[in-house]
Amino acid sequence: MEIIIAKRAGFCFGVKRAIDITFGMATKNKEGVFTIGPLIHNPQVIEKLKREGIFPLEMDDIENSGAKALIIRTHGIPCYLYDNISARGLKIIDATCPFVKKAQRYAKLLKENGYQVLILGDSNHPEVRGIMSYAGEDAIVMDENTPLPKLGSKVGIVVQTTQPVEALKKVLSNIIGHVKEVKVYNTICNSTALRLKETEDMASRVDVMIVVGGKNSANTTQLANLCRSLNVRTYHVETASEIQDKWLNKIKRVGITAGASTPNWIIKEVEKRIRDIGGKSFNGN
Amino acid sequence: MEIIIAKRAGFCFGVKRAIDITFGMATKNKEGVFTIGPLIHNPQVIEKLKREGIFPLEMDDIENSGAKALIIRTHGIPCYLYDNISARGLKIIDATCPFVKKAQRYAKLLKENGYQVLILGDSNHPEVRGIMSYAGEDAIVMDENTPLPKLGSKVGIVVQTTQPVEALKKVLSNIIGHVKEVKVYNTICNSTALRLKETEDMASRVDVMIVVGGKNSANTTQLANLCRSLNVRTYHVETASEIQDKWLNKIKRVGITAGASTPNWIIKEVEKRIRDIGGKSFNGN
Repeated sequence: MEIIIAKRAGFCFGVKRAIDITFGMATKNKEGVFTIGPLIHNPQVIEKLKREGIFPLEMDDIENSGAKALIIRTHGIPCYLYDNISARGLKIIDATCPFVKKAQRYAKLLKENGYQVLILGDSNHPEVRGIMSYAGEDAIVMDENTPLPKLGSKVGIVVQTTQPVEALKKVLSNIIGHVKEVKVYNTICNSTALRLKETEDMASRVDVMIVVGGKNSANTTQLANLCRSLNVRTYHVETASEIQDKWLNKIKRVGITAGASTPNWIIKEVEKRIRDIGGKSFNGN
Repeated sequence: MEIIIAKRAGFCFGVKRAIDITFGMATKNKEGVFTIGPLIHNPQVIEKLKREGIFPLEMDDIENSGAKALIIRTHGIPCYLYDNISARGLKIIDATCPFVKKAQRYAKLLKENGYQVLILGDSNHPEVRGIMSYAGEDAIVMDENTPLPKLGSKVGIVVQTTQPVEALKKVLSNIIGHVKEVKVYNTICNSTALRLKETEDMASRVDVMIVVGGKNSANTTQLANLCRSLNVRTYHVETASEIQDKWLNKIKRVGITAGASTPNWIIKEVEKRIRDIGGKSFNGN
């Protein structure tokens, strides 16, 4: 049985950076250091951080927590929370993904230059709530299926970094006939699109797909759903221990991919587990 | 037989303005006043202007023409020709359509702000050649079918005023995944789109369409082609005298539309001619 491992499986640039910053803190002065919410959507990593003494904390629970420093996760936070944290005398360790930071800056710039800001993304996503705080009171959040809202004559667009480019195309097509000036900052990060593309190619060449990552991870779930939609037998696992021998019975090729929040050591364990069942590893391309 | 006349038949805002300016000159000091090229694509109007003493002149023929003043037509001219004309000591009467003027100004602004300017339009059209002169050396002209050129990271778009919005949607969709920043000035004038839409609606309700305007008028020809594509019997005429009685034999409804360069007096003559054959007029809607 061949094992094909996706080249783009696991941490994206922004998550790797946030993890490095946070574990870096753990080796230093971790007394009173918390992350605002869980750092990433991966239970195993969160457990590992807890063992290192770094716990997630909700904003509402800061008061009696004894917190001295707060780590901001990749999604970023609304600008008014920076002031709130500073006003409490707490240190901020900012692990916001630099690509998300860029989207926040562009939203601010557009607003300052008189544009009505339109954010393409999921209004419930923390990244979008963060960007929104920089975008002014007349800002609008919409996704590709939102009916066309009433717009000013000068519209500026920023995009949640994980949106598909097709959504941006659709929104642009919908609004371009109704406005006189549109400025678009294409803040989509290619990482998600490239991972989906690689997974799609791989799924067409294997008998079984193992998708590794938090059950609460949206992008891992998206990878698993993509594989299922391509009619390949697919298993979404968080750890190697979930994998059953019978899944791989009499198959020729198995593919492994993983979400942006899945650490490499879990992918390695999954690979080892499959090799133990009888697989031989190859790198995907 | 009912006659239905399109509300939007004939001169658009920019053409009406240019005609008013030019005939205004004819009543004043017409000595040595020329238009650069034919003012509009309508032979009857050009003949009428000649009778008033105002002739078209090509730039190459200025030298020995005795010209004292030149009228710039709605399409506008490249910026370096203004200098050329001024250097000859000639007066400029600028009848450039204000919407075209806007596209020229935006192209200049985009260039000044560090954008690579992309002009969506027909590279052979005088309007586009004019806009191009303001857009900098790295500017690109493309239409909706042009393969994606190599682009900088900051792209600014202006559009030939008569382009369909669908072409802009297509070009935006093609480039948005390849650039980080796009600023679009939607300089499309709705006049063309609305006239086409009204003509399309009308064609579905009549037995015969009479499309009035210069045989050399691109937008009149476009109207006639649209009607033909809808399988309604269509005649493209320049004047009332071309209309034959047999065209309207035993029909219930005839529609009249006209291009942006067709003067009202010709449309009126066409209407009268059809009434004489046996029609009764109604305004289109």
